Amino acid sequence: MQTWKTLARRTVLTFNRWLSVESHTVELPDGQIIDEWPWVVTPDYVNVVAVMTDGRFLCFRQVKYAVEGVSLAPVGGYIEPGEDPLPAAQRELLEETGYIADEWINLGRYPVDGNRGAGAANLFLARDAREVQPINADDLEEQQIIFLSRKEIETAVRNGDFKVLGWATAIALALLYLERD
Amino acid sequence: MQTWKTLARRTVLTFNRWLSVESHTVELPDGQIIDEWPWVVTPDYVNVVAVMTDGRFLCFRQVKYAVEGVSLAPVGGYIEPGEDPLPAAQRELLEETGYIADEWINLGRYPVDGNRGAGAANLFLARDAREVQPINADDLEEQQIIFLSRKEIETAVRNGDFKVLGWATAIALALLYLERD
Repeated sequence: MQTWKTLARRTVLTFNRWLSVESHTVELPDGQIIDEWPWVVTPDYVNVVAVMTDGRFLCFRQVKYAVEGVSLAPVGGYIEPGEDPLPAAQRELLEETGYIADEWINLGRYPVDGNRGAGAANLFLARDAREVQPINADDLEEQQIIFLSRKEIETAVRNGDFKVLGWATAIALALLYLERD
Repeated sequence: MQTWKTLARRTVLTFNRWLSVESHTVELPDGQIIDEWPWVVTPDYVNVVAVMTDGRFLCFRQVKYAVEGVSLAPVGGYIEPGEDPLPAAQRELLEETGYIADEWINLGRYPVDGNRGAGAANLFLARDAREVQPINADDLEEQQIIFLSRKEIETAVRNGDFKVLGWATAIALALLYLERD
C-alpha cells in the first residue's frame, strides 16, 4: 500500500500567520495525477491533560468561537515556530495555569484533517502537576480553571462537554492510558 | 461567560466544493471588534466504530494524503448536503463495508477547529454489525478491511496507529463507552 506523492505546491491564499491555503499537484499510486488538491496550513498545536498530585484533573471552562455555549477544555495552544511539541506543552501548562508536572506521557501526534492537513494535534498527559507561579496567559477567550475528579471528567467527556475535536481526543486517550496503567 | 458574535462574513477563497475560506467580523463579550477572523468551511463528516456480532471491530488499513505511511481507520466519510449525521453514518457503513448495524450510539458532534470551524466530526458507535451486501465505495484511497479484537484495537489506538485526529477520537470514545456500558 503506497502513499501519495506531492509533485508541486503553490500558495493560493495567505490569510494571516495562522492560516494559508495551498494547491498541490498529487500523484496517486496508480499514476493518476490530481492537479488541484487543497492543503490547509495552520500551526501545529498541543493539548495537555494535567492530573494534579491529588488525582484531580486541571481543566478550563471557556468559550471558543467555533463552539456553541461554554465548553470544558484541557490546557492547549499553538506550537511556536521552531519549538518542539513537549516544550510547547510544558510552556502552555505553565503560562495558562501556573503549574508544572513531573511526568509527561506523549499521547501521539495526529494530523487534524486526513485529506487537507490543517496542522497536527500533539497530545500529552501530565502527571503530578503542581502550582508554582501565577497565570500568565494572553488568550482572547475568557477562561476559568476548574478541577474535576476522575469520575467527573469521564462523565463529562462521554456527555460531549469537551466540545472541540482535539480536546475530546486528548481527554479520551488520557483516560484510556490511565485505565491500563 | 458569553460567546462571541458574528457581525459579518465574506468569502475570501472558494477552492472547490469541499473547501472555502471566509473572513468574519467578530464582536467579543467586552465589545472589542476583530475585523479579519479566519473561518474554514469544509463539509461535516461522520466516523463509525463498528463492532460485529462476534465482538470484533471492523476497521481499514489505508493511506491518506496527510498521513505518513499506512494508518488504521474506522469507517467514515462526508455528510451529503441536507443529510443528517445518523443516516450519513449508516450510508457510509453500508457503502464502505457492506454491513448494517442494529444499535447506533451517538458519541457526539465536535467542531474540528475551535477557532476556525473547519466542519464538525460526528462520531458513532455501531453495535451488532453484520454483512448484507458487497462493498460499493468510491474513495480514491486504497483500503483493506481488517478485523481487530477489543484488545488489539485498544493497543492500536494507544500506539497511535489510528493516525488522523478524528479517527483516534472515535475509537477512544467508543472504547470508553464500552468500558462503562
